[in-house]
Amino acid sequence: MALRRLLSLRGVLGRRSCCSKQPLPPDFVKALRAVVGAPNVSTATVVREQHGHDESMHDCAPPDAVVWPQAVEQVQELAALCHRCHVPMVPFGTGTGLEGGVNAVQGGVCFDLSRMDGITELSLEDFSVMVEPGVTRKALNKHLRGTGLWFPVDPGADASLCGMAATGASGTNAVRYGTMRPNVLNLRVVLPDGRLLHTAGPGRQARWAPGGQEEVGKRARKGPGWVPTSACSPSSCRKRAAGYDLTSLFVGSEGTLGFLTQATLRLHPLPEAVAVTIATFPGVRAAVSCTVQVLQAAVPVARIEFLDEVMVEACSRFSKLELPAAATLLLELHGSRCSLVEQQQQAEEIVRLNGGSSLAWAKEPEERERLWAMRHSAWYAALALRPGCQGYSTDVCVPISRLPDVVVETKQDLQDSGITGPMVGHVGDGNFHCIIVFNTQDLAEAQRVHAFTERLGRRALAAGGTCTGEHGVGLGKRALLREELGQEGLDTLRSIKTALDPHNLMNPGKVL
Amino acid sequence: MALRRLLSLRGVLGRRSCCSKQPLPPDFVKALRAVVGAPNVSTATVVREQHGHDESMHDCAPPDAVVWPQAVEQVQELAALCHRCHVPMVPFGTGTGLEGGVNAVQGGVCFDLSRMDGITELSLEDFSVMVEPGVTRKALNKHLRGTGLWFPVDPGADASLCGMAATGASGTNAVRYGTMRPNVLNLRVVLPDGRLLHTAGPGRQARWAPGGQEEVGKRARKGPGWVPTSACSPSSCRKRAAGYDLTSLFVGSEGTLGFLTQATLRLHPLPEAVAVTIATFPGVRAAVSCTVQVLQAAVPVARIEFLDEVMVEACSRFSKLELPAAATLLLELHGSRCSLVEQQQQAEEIVRLNGGSSLAWAKEPEERERLWAMRHSAWYAALALRPGCQGYSTDVCVPISRLPDVVVETKQDLQDSGITGPMVGHVGDGNFHCIIVFNTQDLAEAQRVHAFTERLGRRALAAGGTCTGEHGVGLGKRALLREELGQEGLDTLRSIKTALDPHNLMNPGKVL
Repeated sequence: MALRRLLSLRGVLGRRSCCSKQPLPPDFVKALRAVVGAPNVSTATVVREQHGHDESMHDCAPPDAVVWPQAVEQVQELAALCHRCHVPMVPFGTGTGLEGGVNAVQGGVCFDLSRMDGITELSLEDFSVMVEPGVTRKALNKHLRGTGLWFPVDPGADASLCGMAATGASGTNAVRYGTMRPNVLNLRVVLPDGRLLHTAGPGRQARWAPGGQEEVGKRARKGPGWVPTSACSPSSCRKRAAGYDLTSLFVGSEGTLGFLTQATLRLHPLPEAVAVTIATFPGVRAAVSCTVQVLQAAVPVARIEFLDEVMVEACSRFSKLELPAAATLLLELHGSRCSLVEQQQQAEEIVRLNGGSSLAWAKEPEERERLWAMRHSAWYAALALRPGCQGYSTDVCVPISRLPDVVVETKQDLQDSGITGPMVGHVGDGNFHCIIVFNTQDLAEAQRVHAFTERLGRRALAAGGTCTGEHGVGLGKRALLREELGQEGLDTLRSIKTALDPHNLMNPGKVL
Repeated sequence: MALRRLLSLRGVLGRRSCCSKQPLPPDFVKALRAVVGAPNVSTATVVREQHGHDESMHDCAPPDAVVWPQAVEQVQELAALCHRCHVPMVPFGTGTGLEGGVNAVQGGVCFDLSRMDGITELSLEDFSVMVEPGVTRKALNKHLRGTGLWFPVDPGADASLCGMAATGASGTNAVRYGTMRPNVLNLRVVLPDGRLLHTAGPGRQARWAPGGQEEVGKRARKGPGWVPTSACSPSSCRKRAAGYDLTSLFVGSEGTLGFLTQATLRLHPLPEAVAVTIATFPGVRAAVSCTVQVLQAAVPVARIEFLDEVMVEACSRFSKLELPAAATLLLELHGSRCSLVEQQQQAEEIVRLNGGSSLAWAKEPEERERLWAMRHSAWYAALALRPGCQGYSTDVCVPISRLPDVVVETKQDLQDSGITGPMVGHVGDGNFHCIIVFNTQDLAEAQRVHAFTERLGRRALAAGGTCTGEHGVGLGKRALLREELGQEGLDTLRSIKTALDPHNLMNPGKVL
């Protein structure tokens, strides 16, 4: 825990405004119970502590109470109640975040939205579906089985889809299918005061009939009294130029502007054929340069994941595979059978040009699954390098052209600093992680890790990149955010936050 | 002009807050001249009138003065000056908008940004480039010739790219390459008070050196004093989760939040092969259903444009082609030579299944150009149907599943209303236009047109769509915007506007 304390002292992590933490008003818990029923409110220590942290190393900061609303109207009532009493509110999905997004650093009420788990309005024609916050990405894809559609955004963890929208998550498929941002079409948001907002417009019934008729349900094509045949669900159209893009504003807002209580998502057709291969390279630069060239050649790669030799060795041992300990790319291609053949040829040629050698292409689901299981075990494989130590994942993202230099410099920095930090990355997007495994009880080591992560963040910023490609700002990256956006950028974020949450009640202490 | 007056009376268009129009303060023009030099300021009536309208039918509303800044610092100084004196500011690109976005309804200063026309930081590795507001899409694509890259967003007009960002434009290629939104990586914005914001972060120099050294230009990998080797350009990385998405907020803000003085754009590799065909169908529904099926089959179509039989006949006559007067699709496919063959087969089969028949595929640039020239002449071909009349383009967009019904109902409505309104559309996105040609001097006809456009807007909203897919809200769609977003949506837009432009000086009277 030393790093956390150290970083908190430096104002980089934590900054737990404990001093501003207020006890709940008298009878407040009673009022919560009146809204959702006694079984859906808890003030038990163990429950509060479960809800006071995510999967990151940030100190647990338990809320004063946890509530489980079952319907959007309850979320609205609860928010209005908290708003009246100036009690902080923290949205909670699956708690799988990596930057302390759910930690209740100013106490207040944690809204556990996992019991709102409706999947509705699946449209195979529009490639869209509506999900509530209790629906995880695996649950959705299970629901979609047999439809020929899927939701490709995959951050690794089986996170809540609304939580993924809240943090602007992405993962291995983003190079082909995009991050959460282009895949969210509409959001039903409960604002801090309990009002309900649909970011791309609510469902509509005919309300306009200047001729005097209010004829819902009756088709009338002519004259001003035209009304639609039925009420419809919120907008899921693909293109809009109607006012500021509120959907994009709430995606990545990390619970600081409101509760995402439903998301309309864009689905994708399942590829006809899939092939995966592993390619090994003489060095880090060759592997990363190969990635850059694959993109330049416009090979529509679906996943292109990098593992350095330390990571490959760890994964290989952990997953009982026998992979050479070398800089490695894991490539997945999606397409029709015909286009796949062409993609494979192009990819193989570029691998060869960069001095790499590749295994045969795995096309059967089981083989492919085995390779991805290896990649998905990276976190635990890294932790197994130093039993008893803790892990922390960095998350920088840089323009592709700078990726080889930044990766090579970072690798050198890890070695020079004597830090165990195997590297994995969604290099097709310029995004990579060092999974740092260190002894948090060793202050000197914690200090070295801290200095390394700050250098890495600044190295990414200097290369025109970002301190966070997909994990979000949360508690830990607020200082770097200021450097990334500049004072005007930060002031603009603050103006927006103040406009939508004037009392700073929504997930206070995060992002800003 | 009758429709305009009529619509203004009804508060649907216009709402020219003339009463709130103030004269410029004394010596204000002198102060403008002091910033940009006398030759770059004009108060001549003809110049002001040139800048008081776009290509729409909205009444010309001339600004009190026009300025031509040559550098971002001048834009900042001018904005600060206007801000101090509470003078409205209107950004002007090429004036090719369709919703009155540049009309100075409250007077003030028009900032003509066309003389800031730098193209910088072209990166073939990152597929990115930076353009100033004077750069149009054709100028950029000319600049890119020979690089293997292009910028695909194509709204028809040779608009300024920053203007296209400001209105959230799209066009024929959006079904494959997206609208402006995913193709803008960063924006340099001059805020209403003259401050400079980079929406995804500014260029950065090392400023952090807790070790006491401030060593810009010197590489030091170890220790807290690490600094980058050189200053770099603003962020152009593909993925960010660092704070609210300011880039998406300013894209589509229609000049109401600040001046877009530079855009970092995402470029795309030119396709290896391109093929275009025209397919004719027994009816509107068959053509639109064919579109839906092409998308469902995941054919990665680059353009899929619909023209109804009235439009085809008009275009055919105008462009001296001999096309059958039938519901028609114009399809363009992009890909490698191999994948193109496969795409063509798939497309042909779906055309046949819907009772359509297609011409041979045009693969040579000249043939393709001839077909697209026909499509691009649609506006003038429509106007030629009724010489002496004026044109107005509707712009609804609906979910794909609702498109056949909405198009068929709209066509019936046109006939029932006795309105000339040939239909064209980017139907792959669910977006279509009726180019209404009518006699603005005939009040009864103008009234019928007005009633029709309102019914169409509401029909789209009822189908879960939007009143504007790509033209923006501007002056004409503010009433529909309220219905589309609901009161909470509109209130949220207003809160953001007030937070960033508290004195309502940026393009007042638009959107909200």
